[in-house]
Amino acid sequence: MKDKLNVIVMSGTVDKLLAMSTIVSGAVAMGKEVNLFVTFWGLMAFKKGAWMDPSQQKLPAEYQEFGPMMQERMQAMGIQPWMVTLKTAKEIGDIHVYSCGMTQDMFGLKLDDLEDIVDDEKGVAGFIAMCEDAEVLVF
Amino acid sequence: MKDKLNVIVMSGTVDKLLAMSTIVSGAVAMGKEVNLFVTFWGLMAFKKGAWMDPSQQKLPAEYQEFGPMMQERMQAMGIQPWMVTLKTAKEIGDIHVYSCGMTQDMFGLKLDDLEDIVDDEKGVAGFIAMCEDAEVLVF
Amino acid sequence: MKDKLNVIVMSGTVDKLLAMSTIVSGAVAMGKEVNLFVTFWGLMAFKKGAWMDPSQQKLPAEYQEFGPMMQERMQAMGIQPWMVTLKTAKEIGDIHVYSCGMTQDMFGLKLDDLEDIVDDEKGVAGFIAMCEDAEVLVF
Repeated sequence: MKDKLNVIVMSGTVDKLLAMSTIVSGAVAMGKEVNLFVTFWGLMAFKKGAWMDPSQQKLPAEYQEFGPMMQERMQAMGIQPWMVTLKTAKEIGDIHVYSCGMTQDMFGLKLDDLEDIVDDEKGVAGFIAMCEDAEVLVF
Repeated sequence: MKDKLNVIVMSGTVDKLLAMSTIVSGAVAMGKEVNLFVTFWGLMAFKKGAWMDPSQQKLPAEYQEFGPMMQERMQAMGIQPWMVTLKTAKEIGDIHVYSCGMTQDMFGLKLDDLEDIVDDEKGVAGFIAMCEDAEVLVF
Repeated sequence: MKDKLNVIVMSGTVDKLLAMSTIVSGAVAMGKEVNLFVTFWGLMAFKKGAWMDPSQQKLPAEYQEFGPMMQERMQAMGIQPWMVTLKTAKEIGDIHVYSCGMTQDMFGLKLDDLEDIVDDEKGVAGFIAMCEDAEVLVF
């Protein structure tokens, strides 16, 4: 992993978002620059308040039955919701969050409809240009 | 991201294929060499004509309900089908597409059953050997 | 790909595990060091005996119908179960397998509940620190 970690956040299921935010949080703690490109179902999970609204939270279809158990255990263990982890990491570290312009258009979403953590919208070409010296992960 | 982008295309759902082809297209526009290794459900999506046949197109189980809306919006926005984007990128740039030999055998597919964009079949070891100086993404 | 390949194994479906173990096996054959960080549904697939127990094996929801055909073809082709491929690779090469401590707690699993191939448990921060000079893939 280089000094820069760029993550394409495509998935909107809570497991992927939780893993992504935990890894981002760890990378920031190590002093890395992090850039997120939020697209497709990922973007839907970044809609204002979606992370707090059970009706907008999804688990993979294969593992639906684990939902209640996971929620209960996470609460008992004091694991924060993924968006809180991400926001805390952004307060401390060098994180930039870009929404995919094409996805916004497809889903009829404005920047204002998304969580404040999103800095700006960007095209795919613009994001790829930012990947020059980065380790790139897809979630 | 280095001068070479190698992508393992495992997924067969349209969202992943669309994101993959858009990123490949952007990488090619920046002058990068791109190598695709198409395997598992990805290979099924590369069967001749599959990308044009609604009965062979899949969305993730968690997001099935967005299918009609996405199709309508993509048409309205003039977004091309992923295979068209990939073929256009290959006409312009340095893209090589390899099908996974093991998956072909598993699904009883010959090279002739796949879209012309596939250059040749390859084993996993052969593809990994090509990753030496590449950024590697999994879709 | 660098001399070190670090893989985040999040998925628990057989297709992803099979692809992961095949790639790891190829990487090891090329003399690379491999580190696995097994988390979420991946960890459930590493429970003792889970890889041999049909009731604990999953395919992606979109492709359930291919299960019987795949199993039959894999047997006919002599493709080994993914865990056997991974264990064989570990006997030959430099592979370290770490389970995610947080996931173990969430699912109430001890190191003893997991396959012997798991060397130790680790936190996310610890794994990220190991990624410094590695190519990182997410499965």
